[in-house]
Amino acid sequence: MIQAKIAEILESDQFLQEYHVKGWVRSFRSNRFIALNDGSTLKNLQCVIDFENTDEELLKRINVGAAISVKGTLKESMGSQQRVEIEVTELEILGDANPEEVKFTILSPKKHSMEKLREQAHLRVRTNTFGAVMRVRSKLSFAVHKFFQEKNFHYVNTPIITGSDAEGAGEMFRVTSLDLKNPPKNEDGSINYKEDFFGKETNLTVSGQLEAEAFAMGLGQVYTFGPTFRAENSNTSRHLAEFWMIEPEVAFCDLDGNMDLAEEFIKYVLKYVMRHCKEDLEFLAERQASEDKLKPKAERSDMSLLEKLNFVLDNNFKRVSYTEAIEILKNSKPNKKKKFNYIIEEWGADLQSEHERYLVEKHFKSPVILFDYPASIKAFYMRLNEDQKTVRAMDILFPGIGEIVGGSQREERLEVLKEKMEALDISEEELWWYLDTRKFGTCVHSGFGLGFERLVQFTTGMTNIRDVIPFPRTPQNAEF
Amino acid sequence: MIQAKIAEILESDQFLQEYHVKGWVRSFRSNRFIALNDGSTLKNLQCVIDFENTDEELLKRINVGAAISVKGTLKESMGSQQRVEIEVTELEILGDANPEEVKFTILSPKKHSMEKLREQAHLRVRTNTFGAVMRVRSKLSFAVHKFFQEKNFHYVNTPIITGSDAEGAGEMFRVTSLDLKNPPKNEDGSINYKEDFFGKETNLTVSGQLEAEAFAMGLGQVYTFGPTFRAENSNTSRHLAEFWMIEPEVAFCDLDGNMDLAEEFIKYVLKYVMRHCKEDLEFLAERQASEDKLKPKAERSDMSLLEKLNFVLDNNFKRVSYTEAIEILKNSKPNKKKKFNYIIEEWGADLQSEHERYLVEKHFKSPVILFDYPASIKAFYMRLNEDQKTVRAMDILFPGIGEIVGGSQREERLEVLKEKMEALDISEEELWWYLDTRKFGTCVHSGFGLGFERLVQFTTGMTNIRDVIPFPRTPQNAEF
Repeated sequence: MIQAKIAEILESDQFLQEYHVKGWVRSFRSNRFIALNDGSTLKNLQCVIDFENTDEELLKRINVGAAISVKGTLKESMGSQQRVEIEVTELEILGDANPEEVKFTILSPKKHSMEKLREQAHLRVRTNTFGAVMRVRSKLSFAVHKFFQEKNFHYVNTPIITGSDAEGAGEMFRVTSLDLKNPPKNEDGSINYKEDFFGKETNLTVSGQLEAEAFAMGLGQVYTFGPTFRAENSNTSRHLAEFWMIEPEVAFCDLDGNMDLAEEFIKYVLKYVMRHCKEDLEFLAERQASEDKLKPKAERSDMSLLEKLNFVLDNNFKRVSYTEAIEILKNSKPNKKKKFNYIIEEWGADLQSEHERYLVEKHFKSPVILFDYPASIKAFYMRLNEDQKTVRAMDILFPGIGEIVGGSQREERLEVLKEKMEALDISEEELWWYLDTRKFGTCVHSGFGLGFERLVQFTTGMTNIRDVIPFPRTPQNAEF
Repeated sequence: MIQAKIAEILESDQFLQEYHVKGWVRSFRSNRFIALNDGSTLKNLQCVIDFENTDEELLKRINVGAAISVKGTLKESMGSQQRVEIEVTELEILGDANPEEVKFTILSPKKHSMEKLREQAHLRVRTNTFGAVMRVRSKLSFAVHKFFQEKNFHYVNTPIITGSDAEGAGEMFRVTSLDLKNPPKNEDGSINYKEDFFGKETNLTVSGQLEAEAFAMGLGQVYTFGPTFRAENSNTSRHLAEFWMIEPEVAFCDLDGNMDLAEEFIKYVLKYVMRHCKEDLEFLAERQASEDKLKPKAERSDMSLLEKLNFVLDNNFKRVSYTEAIEILKNSKPNKKKKFNYIIEEWGADLQSEHERYLVEKHFKSPVILFDYPASIKAFYMRLNEDQKTVRAMDILFPGIGEIVGGSQREERLEVLKEKMEALDISEEELWWYLDTRKFGTCVHSGFGLGFERLVQFTTGMTNIRDVIPFPRTPQNAEF
């Protein structure tokens, strides 16, 4: 008797072998065929019962959602749906699932809306779709670590709670242990943060970049992969208040090297999941195709999920300067015919998702890296070009999703950095340590950020970002 | 000309090969020998300058901390300290380091206290000790992922911001976007959290276990690896307010399986770093040995760092019930002679670090797994034994450090769980979703938690936990 996971049994050729397997009932039909799932794979294991010789009371307890233990023999299956099946010799109910209660949950065997699944996020991992997404997410995570470790990058855990609010990437959440009802106050009526846990105001980080830069200036090449936060009231299918971000940072690397790294990285992780999550991705591709059929034609994807993944793998990312892109967009049909929601009129305009997608999907028909953006629309730490008006920034644009990576060569010149900080009213006092990295052996260095959930969305074809993270945090929602 | 990292060059046999390498000057002596480091390895690369033919102004700028670019030829070294060296043909200063400013920093070439290093946490990664610790930390992280992925566990990112405060593992930090100076209030004067970002009170998580359990009940076997938080005012060398935790959770697994998993896991990750961080660990072992010499004899370690690591690898973890352990401790010499700070008098006592270390270091002389603890000193979710007074908990105890892992088989019986929650005044309403996992196909399941920084401390021999995380968060300290 071999105790095994369903993923192994489905691959097994050891016919007549006795197996012991545990899992949850996904369906039970004709009082005979149990579809059993244990999370190790998308596919269920068919377990066939000799119902004539099975106790009737036991049969009644084989309900959808129940946890059972099955012992039996591996047989070739007569059915067309599966290659092998287990002929059950012994069955035990480990945990019941009362159909009268199950019917109010998403475990009940009918189609549930994604919204309903979100309301029961603790159970949705037992559905095919969500199980597949979570397995892909896990494998993608590992591919991220594997890629950087193979290249001898050092993983760095930058702080989650930060005393700095200078990163300027958006609204922050306050972290405090003060009694909000009765906080200690200074004489002028302001909150006395000296009495807070950390002795000052603290927030949840929006990015680990600045700390990663400090580490790159000693360890050479590092990456972060951790949670980041935005207290923005954006109730969209693209925003989360809590999400995971990957931020590599490399000393002695310029913007070209940065683009090379980002392209190699994305291709590596996508290849990895295509090799290791074949079944899950095929399922998700079918799912997306059938969802698409229900949509008006204009909203359907041009490419299937697997086509989109191969589109990224098979193309060299086209490198185009912002200035070139603006020319292309200004002269494009949708701009002239005023089909864009935001008409591109002049150099300096911030690009919207519609423009990014036009460049990728219509004009270049390949993933695009835009670089050398106007300084005015980018962050203070990006390196100023000789033209004094553009910075060495780069964004990677993908089909369907628009921007997936944002990065830059960093401003390594102390005086230039100080000037920019002053112009933007960013306190030198607060970022003293960041400035130190420019004082002691400064060097050209670059890095980028990739929102992990965007990558999971792209890979799985899920349209709502809330469906690619276990327990999404959004305005008015921190359930579970 | 090959552009290379120092780690590669030091391994190279390609004598006369031209190399291009960039890094930071660690020392410069006799106007001739540069010790160059780029973070890829502990060791420096010796770069030899022909100072007679080098511009004097350039020589003056080769200072400790400066970033330089070196081109030159690989030669066998005459010195006894290194096998190879670079005969410099071209040298460029990329970023200066003014000695007049460097001397106020920890970059200056003298011994600095660990406390001083912490105050300059943005620079300490450029020291040998801290560079070694961070490389080991990175490799340990990867080993964690590799172990679980090879066993087909799914990585789960449980939420950082949580609406629950029922986990009961300690004081929590509040997360809010309310204006603390003027928060919205209800008629009774209490804070109106409906107007907060999430529409209710939210905190930083103390553990992802409960959510991981829900996921294990669908995906079978999962693990978390993410930041957790404690707002406890513990200013010790063992506590951080923000630290990383690893929490595997396995369906259909009992306490014995849980112990097997934990032992296999720890041995795997230690073996991995011993293979991949040999130099760094040898350096840290020497460092610990010389630190030890400065201590009074009683405080010195019994074992060297590498002996301690091998002690864990070479021994089967001894499994001992709490009841047995209490008997051993009651009858032990230090207990009878009242050498323990806390004398063990009767069954039910909570064990202190001194007792745990006695069991490991003196009595069993092997790592120890204690199991079946009194229910009264353990958390509500642990499975009650038939004796009604102990629970299926287990702690793994290590030399020097005491408890390194805490885990349990979880209470899978809905009614028993409800009773325990009621007794401890834990709201069923709040944990409705957790109870659901016991309603729909409940099953025996187990898991454990391991504080990652404790593991890094054990592996590197660092005595203060603040020295094994990039930017430590502790009471009154959230700098950087």
